[in-house]
Amino acid sequence: MSQPSPSDHDVRMRGFTRRTTVAEAMDWIDRQSAPLGEETVPLEQAFTRALARDVASDVDVPGFARAMMDGFALRAADTLGASAYNRLALEVIGESMPGRPFAGRVGPGQAVRIMTGAPLPNGADAVLPAELVEIHPGRILAQGDVPPEKHVGRRGEDITAGEIALRAGRVLRPQDLGLLASIGVAQVPVVRRPRARIVVTGDELLPAGSKPEGAKIVDANGPMLRALVERDGGVAVYPGIVPDRPEAILEAIREEADVVLVSGGSSVGQEDHAPELLRRHGELAIHGLAMRPSSPAGMGTLDGRLVFLLPGNPVSCLCAYDFFARRAIRRMAGQSVEWPYRRVTLPLGRKIVSTVGRLDYLRVRIVGGRVEPLAIGGASILSSTTRADGFVLVPPDSEGQGPDSQVEVFLYD
Amino acid sequence: MSQPSPSDHDVRMRGFTRRTTVAEAMDWIDRQSAPLGEETVPLEQAFTRALARDVASDVDVPGFARAMMDGFALRAADTLGASAYNRLALEVIGESMPGRPFAGRVGPGQAVRIMTGAPLPNGADAVLPAELVEIHPGRILAQGDVPPEKHVGRRGEDITAGEIALRAGRVLRPQDLGLLASIGVAQVPVVRRPRARIVVTGDELLPAGSKPEGAKIVDANGPMLRALVERDGGVAVYPGIVPDRPEAILEAIREEADVVLVSGGSSVGQEDHAPELLRRHGELAIHGLAMRPSSPAGMGTLDGRLVFLLPGNPVSCLCAYDFFARRAIRRMAGQSVEWPYRRVTLPLGRKIVSTVGRLDYLRVRIVGGRVEPLAIGGASILSSTTRADGFVLVPPDSEGQGPDSQVEVFLYD
Repeated sequence: MSQPSPSDHDVRMRGFTRRTTVAEAMDWIDRQSAPLGEETVPLEQAFTRALARDVASDVDVPGFARAMMDGFALRAADTLGASAYNRLALEVIGESMPGRPFAGRVGPGQAVRIMTGAPLPNGADAVLPAELVEIHPGRILAQGDVPPEKHVGRRGEDITAGEIALRAGRVLRPQDLGLLASIGVAQVPVVRRPRARIVVTGDELLPAGSKPEGAKIVDANGPMLRALVERDGGVAVYPGIVPDRPEAILEAIREEADVVLVSGGSSVGQEDHAPELLRRHGELAIHGLAMRPSSPAGMGTLDGRLVFLLPGNPVSCLCAYDFFARRAIRRMAGQSVEWPYRRVTLPLGRKIVSTVGRLDYLRVRIVGGRVEPLAIGGASILSSTTRADGFVLVPPDSEGQGPDSQVEVFLYD
Repeated sequence: MSQPSPSDHDVRMRGFTRRTTVAEAMDWIDRQSAPLGEETVPLEQAFTRALARDVASDVDVPGFARAMMDGFALRAADTLGASAYNRLALEVIGESMPGRPFAGRVGPGQAVRIMTGAPLPNGADAVLPAELVEIHPGRILAQGDVPPEKHVGRRGEDITAGEIALRAGRVLRPQDLGLLASIGVAQVPVVRRPRARIVVTGDELLPAGSKPEGAKIVDANGPMLRALVERDGGVAVYPGIVPDRPEAILEAIREEADVVLVSGGSSVGQEDHAPELLRRHGELAIHGLAMRPSSPAGMGTLDGRLVFLLPGNPVSCLCAYDFFARRAIRRMAGQSVEWPYRRVTLPLGRKIVSTVGRLDYLRVRIVGGRVEPLAIGGASILSSTTRADGFVLVPPDSEGQGPDSQVEVFLYD
């Protein structure tokens, strides 16, 4: 083969000398990413955020002993021996309502009408339920007895002062916000959300919102990545399409961010600028992965931040994001790295074939309770992921699976 | 029993004459709720929203035939018989790059250098991959052959003009946003989010953000309900605590909303105003449920809107919300009514006892792979739901289950 001219050179596929396994890439990500620092947000913005440190209560909840039934607060000893055949009279000296406690003291032979949740008056040690009482003006007849503490919730029964209410790392649930409110927390220390800068390159691209025309196509990866970042607890920063020139891409990568997602130009052609930029100005740690789609993906660091090189083909972009960028963003946000998809195990409708040494991400439909791999298209056909119900992962050590074998499906919905 | 005085009357538990089953209540909700009307939102706000109607494409994607490999666009017939031993020369007349197509026409014996994704030039019908080519200045030697259409993606391969891209009811996924962008959609018709007004009553309550003090406790249900509504695709409207007076509660229920959640005062005591308000001014369709906790819950309509009466005890409030209000809100938002919790099936660590005729919602922990019902507290102990890993539902026809029997746990996380 003769010496190619420079203009011909970049057409040749130099290829990847070695493809990194998905497991190796995940290990690298886990070494490079950890929960970000702390910030404080108002309680109403804390849902689904990760708690940055333990939160202890400095109060008892409830701050008082309270009635657990509607009835009468009294001294349990005063009910001793009371029954329908031996009704014992007590004087009613007042009432205790939620938020409006009885101010006095319950003495022997006395009772205070009390509602569920109201503070137990001083002197009383039990609540006689309304059902065991015959009510008369100014007095009651007890028709049953109660032991001390009966139908009384003790002070601090829910949370005790000094107790840790929620531990660092907790991804806050609706009831956690209720608990934090109940102990008087208004501002919540949470792990900062990673700012993920989306750098979409490609001179053939029109910005989302445009109509495709001529040789131009509309950017699908930007809107998709923005939603994915949002799903994973990050803040997407997506200012628009970046011209396909090394200096423009480098400048975009260097803008303020915690993690950078570069979509397009990730492979080994001379039009693929991003890998070379990482190699020159930072570290191209991994380039080329033993998987399909997404084999031309890569990752590295630049100016101390993680950079993910995602292929421009939208299916590859989705797959590479979900395997790698998702993991880093969720770790930085303090979230679980579990797949965010429901899983079902179902029989294969027909066989799937895979290559040993490579992880395959197969889009599938579920038809009549059976898993059907989608025949349509390669990594450029985004509609294959919108027609699919989910995907199946075929591990690198598998040559595929025969019909009727059980496979785990990750559901997109 | 003598005639009670009016002030004593309200202490007696009148109780529920009949408790509605959970299944009956769900049927009622399903009859009362349907997806709300349509609104249009920009693409970047459409993630997780339900599509209000079918979206058809009015363009082909891609809008041109394109190369699926880097190589040379040519006439397939010109490669007939080419091999490493029979190299066939072609003239290179230009290049086609993504977004920058070749303007001319490929004639017999000619080729155009082409990159993946670039438009196939007129006259060409196949792409010869770079690996099968020896490159010289101005010409190539084909070392292999390709049939027509080889390595060519056809126009409209992803989506064809006139085709329905996504159907009404679709809850939009990240890739759906990409697909919509690719067909030129900027504004998306989605089901309107239900506005859920949160009406928290209780004179013992301080607003969230306060410190509890004296006989006052801080509202936990408001912050919890706000997060639950947000989770379920609604818009929470929570202006603060409403005084425990019938006219104030009625006024709050009548404020603008699609659905109203009343927390507190849901039971049968005379201090429980909300059921009576529904009975007088609207319809109290269901009051008292065959379940624990949440038996004092209710539901009905007022001024044409759904109103849910949620018990003030926070565990009951959470449970009643998740069974009933969640279902209505998700149906109104066009979302699935599936439980929003992951499920695992595990053996019971110790027996659970339940009452026939009542559905039980048991908070559980998972300890060493076994399910342990939490011993702590009743419906007033919110921390039982923050200490729990999830819950188990014991159906009304069950008396409970013995240790080691398999139960399904709904995980809170």
